[in-house]
Amino acid sequence: MDCWVDGQPAHALSLKDRGLAYGDGLFETIAVRGGQPILLDRHLKRLAEGCSRLAIAADIEVIRHELLAYGSAMGEGVLKLILTRGDGLRGYAPDPAAPGRRILQGNPPAAYPAVHGEHGIRLFPCNTRLSRQPLLAGLKHLNRLEQVLARAEWQDSEHAEGLMLDQAGRVIEGVFSNLFLVRDGVLMTPDLQRCGVAGVMRAELLFQAESLAIPIQIADISLEQLQWADEVFVCNSVYGIWPVRAYAALSWPVGPLTRKLQTIARALLDA
Amino acid sequence: MDCWVDGQPAHALSLKDRGLAYGDGLFETIAVRGGQPILLDRHLKRLAEGCSRLAIAADIEVIRHELLAYGSAMGEGVLKLILTRGDGLRGYAPDPAAPGRRILQGNPPAAYPAVHGEHGIRLFPCNTRLSRQPLLAGLKHLNRLEQVLARAEWQDSEHAEGLMLDQAGRVIEGVFSNLFLVRDGVLMTPDLQRCGVAGVMRAELLFQAESLAIPIQIADISLEQLQWADEVFVCNSVYGIWPVRAYAALSWPVGPLTRKLQTIARALLDA
Repeated sequence: MDCWVDGQPAHALSLKDRGLAYGDGLFETIAVRGGQPILLDRHLKRLAEGCSRLAIAADIEVIRHELLAYGSAMGEGVLKLILTRGDGLRGYAPDPAAPGRRILQGNPPAAYPAVHGEHGIRLFPCNTRLSRQPLLAGLKHLNRLEQVLARAEWQDSEHAEGLMLDQAGRVIEGVFSNLFLVRDGVLMTPDLQRCGVAGVMRAELLFQAESLAIPIQIADISLEQLQWADEVFVCNSVYGIWPVRAYAALSWPVGPLTRKLQTIARALLDA
Repeated sequence: MDCWVDGQPAHALSLKDRGLAYGDGLFETIAVRGGQPILLDRHLKRLAEGCSRLAIAADIEVIRHELLAYGSAMGEGVLKLILTRGDGLRGYAPDPAAPGRRILQGNPPAAYPAVHGEHGIRLFPCNTRLSRQPLLAGLKHLNRLEQVLARAEWQDSEHAEGLMLDQAGRVIEGVFSNLFLVRDGVLMTPDLQRCGVAGVMRAELLFQAESLAIPIQIADISLEQLQWADEVFVCNSVYGIWPVRAYAALSWPVGPLTRKLQTIARALLDA
């Protein structure tokens, strides 16, 4: 399916776009099933927060209508929205009145092996560490060189994802996933105030767990805490949940809370 | 003048470009005088180091010939080269064989007030701190949201540049310049192993100072050291040198070493 730029079919982008020049923008990767963008409200909420923190002028309701129309036209697959600050003149200074530029791209459904969800995966131990930047933490912005470097660290198919630590050695997230662990019945996930992307599936799982009265803890997590976890899993809004079976010398079984939340994620993504 | 993409006149970019998707690339901003790209070898050296560290396959000699041809055609102005990893498929994993994509853009000469160089400037105290990322430090890569946020902190024309500290409060650089100070005859500039852009004019000035037997120190610099400096200046490869007269409550005279190096920078840029 053709891309859309600001609501119109397009094949190319202005060379003056600040998304290209500085990574000055945000993105969302949204599963589409039966013409419906899944978890759309959560994607739009994160996008709106990003626009607010980066001071990008964008009309979220216009974006909602475009995503619904594009999703309806594509039917099944993965919809990527890139929202940039639009064209720039020379220099870093942003034009506060510049309307954001909306780029929509449709891709076929993700083709991950079913075995990742069924039997679980092995996490590659990435050497690339996430830097501390509270001003950008949580956002899905376009400055992703750390993820590019981390993902380039392994080529084998043994590792379906990689684990990224921050510069202080805290456990933060996967390269394209968030991470959860379970310990003594408590569902834990790293605090993302310093770095990391606050994933839409992560937010949804925290909401679902709260509804089920499962105790939740959002906190700094050390490698030692990971070692003593009863269950570990990663998640994102495209594949749902993958149990984590191994990381370096550590290993875990696939546990019951992982399976319970996986069923919930699957129901959402199969909607 | 038209932009060039991979050596051909072009007005638009592929929507699949990884420069847009992830800021996966590098750039150089080069002064052009009398058809000549100034300090071309230093620009290409930094670019080559960036390609090596990001594992972007690019033929630096092809880039050199394109920059020379483009510069010759534009005559006077500022030439911007963006080198991205080219088109990507879905996901962060880079294709190690992907050839880089070369984007050349010509702009008219920068129109900074002459008074900046003559009388010196005032630095805005930016709240945006630079994050520590040794894997990217020194490179002029396309992940520039920190600079965008910092430059958005002031709109007045009283401040020609802003000063950025790192998360530990060390003095690092301007938003679009490098910083030097002089103390007891020693020329000092911040160490850029953790963050910052290792500017081409910075490298040239260090080289020139060495040739003149001026003592040089590349080290961590605190705000207190800045306070006790005899002279402070900022530099880049487009405007040369601007003396710094004030930063917050601090102030400095325009000193003799600043003037000496400014003459050298001016001679290069007026070539």
